[in-house]
Amino acid sequence: MPTALILGAGMVGSVMATDMASDFTVTIADSRPEALNAAVARAKNAGRTIASSQADLSDPRILHDLAQPFDIILGALSSRIGFQTLRTIIEAKKNYCDISFFAQDALELDALARQHNVTAVVDCGVAPGMSNMICAHEVAQFERSGGSADSLAIYVGGLPRERRWPFQYKAGFAPSDVIEEYTRPTRLVENGKIVIREALTEPEWLEFPGLGTLEAVNTDGLRSLATTLQGKVPNMKEKTLRYPGHYDLMRVFKETGLFSEDEIQVGGVGGVKVKPRDVTAALMFPKWTYQPGEEDLTVMRIIVEGTRAGKREQVTWNLVDFYDKPSGATSMSRTTALPATAIARMIASGTLRRPGVSPPETFGAMPGMLEVLVKELDKKGITYTRRVVGYPGSPSRA
Amino acid sequence: MPTALILGAGMVGSVMATDMASDFTVTIADSRPEALNAAVARAKNAGRTIASSQADLSDPRILHDLAQPFDIILGALSSRIGFQTLRTIIEAKKNYCDISFFAQDALELDALARQHNVTAVVDCGVAPGMSNMICAHEVAQFERSGGSADSLAIYVGGLPRERRWPFQYKAGFAPSDVIEEYTRPTRLVENGKIVIREALTEPEWLEFPGLGTLEAVNTDGLRSLATTLQGKVPNMKEKTLRYPGHYDLMRVFKETGLFSEDEIQVGGVGGVKVKPRDVTAALMFPKWTYQPGEEDLTVMRIIVEGTRAGKREQVTWNLVDFYDKPSGATSMSRTTALPATAIARMIASGTLRRPGVSPPETFGAMPGMLEVLVKELDKKGITYTRRVVGYPGSPSRA
Repeated sequence: MPTALILGAGMVGSVMATDMASDFTVTIADSRPEALNAAVARAKNAGRTIASSQADLSDPRILHDLAQPFDIILGALSSRIGFQTLRTIIEAKKNYCDISFFAQDALELDALARQHNVTAVVDCGVAPGMSNMICAHEVAQFERSGGSADSLAIYVGGLPRERRWPFQYKAGFAPSDVIEEYTRPTRLVENGKIVIREALTEPEWLEFPGLGTLEAVNTDGLRSLATTLQGKVPNMKEKTLRYPGHYDLMRVFKETGLFSEDEIQVGGVGGVKVKPRDVTAALMFPKWTYQPGEEDLTVMRIIVEGTRAGKREQVTWNLVDFYDKPSGATSMSRTTALPATAIARMIASGTLRRPGVSPPETFGAMPGMLEVLVKELDKKGITYTRRVVGYPGSPSRA
Repeated sequence: MPTALILGAGMVGSVMATDMASDFTVTIADSRPEALNAAVARAKNAGRTIASSQADLSDPRILHDLAQPFDIILGALSSRIGFQTLRTIIEAKKNYCDISFFAQDALELDALARQHNVTAVVDCGVAPGMSNMICAHEVAQFERSGGSADSLAIYVGGLPRERRWPFQYKAGFAPSDVIEEYTRPTRLVENGKIVIREALTEPEWLEFPGLGTLEAVNTDGLRSLATTLQGKVPNMKEKTLRYPGHYDLMRVFKETGLFSEDEIQVGGVGGVKVKPRDVTAALMFPKWTYQPGEEDLTVMRIIVEGTRAGKREQVTWNLVDFYDKPSGATSMSRTTALPATAIARMIASGTLRRPGVSPPETFGAMPGMLEVLVKELDKKGITYTRRVVGYPGSPSRA
């Protein structure tokens, strides 16, 4: 059997390890023994066997040596060390599939990866990840039929199934990244130009069967799409979904200054300097953390509009995925991990080969590629649906 | 002309000084020269002349000497030094009328005041103040007619005229006292017993012509009434009024821990310990401060129910008072200052004499007393209305 190394034994790494173990000899690595034990137990619970390796993955030399024996490496580490991990794996000349969502520009390492003949894919989860592939796929479809796409919109959110006052929200990843998402100016593309909008603005309300109404606001989630589809799609936006009411509070917190990183002096004489965001985070994060067994869901809608054969068409993708009770795996971890393992398999088998660092849209645009991926995910219970509506007077191609 | 000394040249002290100057020789004292200058200018603007005295009123010896020449003293100082000021004025053997709303029990100084033959009235503003007098008046009215009151409810609020997102609120006094009001457990009287309720609970929505709907929640405002009317009125509550939406946010802030005084550690390694409330206060208070010329209003409703001659009756008092454009005095300062000056005049003229420290309800229960006060306030544009409704089948005594 081919061999796979999973970096990070958090929830996403665990799901990756259990999934890969069906046809790979899997080792999962982390610095935390308890996380490793939990990952091994989860795999065992699913009837799979994986090995574990306790190692400080933040040390590039340790990581470099650890990676050597494996055919494919999957990354599910903190965004904080995502970029340095990518560099180390490329230098170790290993093919790599990563979901760590780091802030740096992965394409800076593209030349290095090509030089080492390494195929590396980043942002390979649900959004970014599936969202990029779906957008690239639909844009390419419009172009192949001689038409063109002129707008795309990505709506995505990870939510708790139970709505609890006051926030109606739990964070499936580091809550500090959520505040960052709520404060960082967002990049959209309008009429072919990148424009900047304040986060949390331009609310829209969308209906999802079984979930009711969700609110979407601007967040900075276009990432690589803003440049890779530049010139192809003149209007692009990404918005994050929450239960109605959540953003109302977040706007108030932001307006009050509770998300500010500017230090203020508090406590009068003998007082201290503090960043309000640190205080807000310390208070809010315990309330935003999923309890063991607490159920979540992942929801995504992508709408691509364009012209094909002289007719207007709107293509809508939908995903509503729930917590997996049998495995106890969160929806967020499954919808993030399983696109990555599917792509890792294609890289390992040689089906997918593109030396360099690629964002997922590179593969999404390849004919037939998305269809295979969607079928793989559907087998594992993650069901994406696609619907095409022709505008009045034009035939539907659903 | 008799002489009066006003302690404190804030907004309330200024209004007191200008008002008293119509028939008293007035001196206003404060440690802040700019506050004194503003108070003198305000009086001049109203065609009155007052003297000012710069003095450190937090020093009891200075205050004791300063008070000596005056016939009557009015207190409008910070609640922080309200109690020590009361003691000093009593020791100086001066009659005193105070609105400083301090936390300590004023009745601890009752014996001292009797010993010095001093008539001192505390909590002499709008609420506490007028609210106590109105309640005591109505309870006494029920009793005089052989009946009894069985419930009283006080609803009161100071609000900005313009409602601005997100808080729709400005604080007419120290904003830290507002957070204290939102967190301190509240005392109500139910079936003759004092019960404790969490602050911000048991919302009610009340309509006020011209203002629309306001929300009232439990706050700890019964103060002396909880004991002075104990045994007379089995059900008593005090609630604070805000525009709808404000308390929803305050409940979220409280739930989040933003009002907590328990220190938390923030900022990781090399971080600091901080009380979340201090941070919230530092951020929120600038947003809660009235800008110069920003208009406020004061709203109060008191409902006393009981039985008279075998019939059920409900007595409702209402006050809706707005910012006074000609003088630039806030509604809160006028509705607070002018009951105090009216009572100060009665004390100075000898109409009102009761050696000891009295809460206002002591005087409110005296026949004819409230009527005089209400007439005086009405002359100055502060109009309280009273309406009596007999329950179905019983005659109205309006």
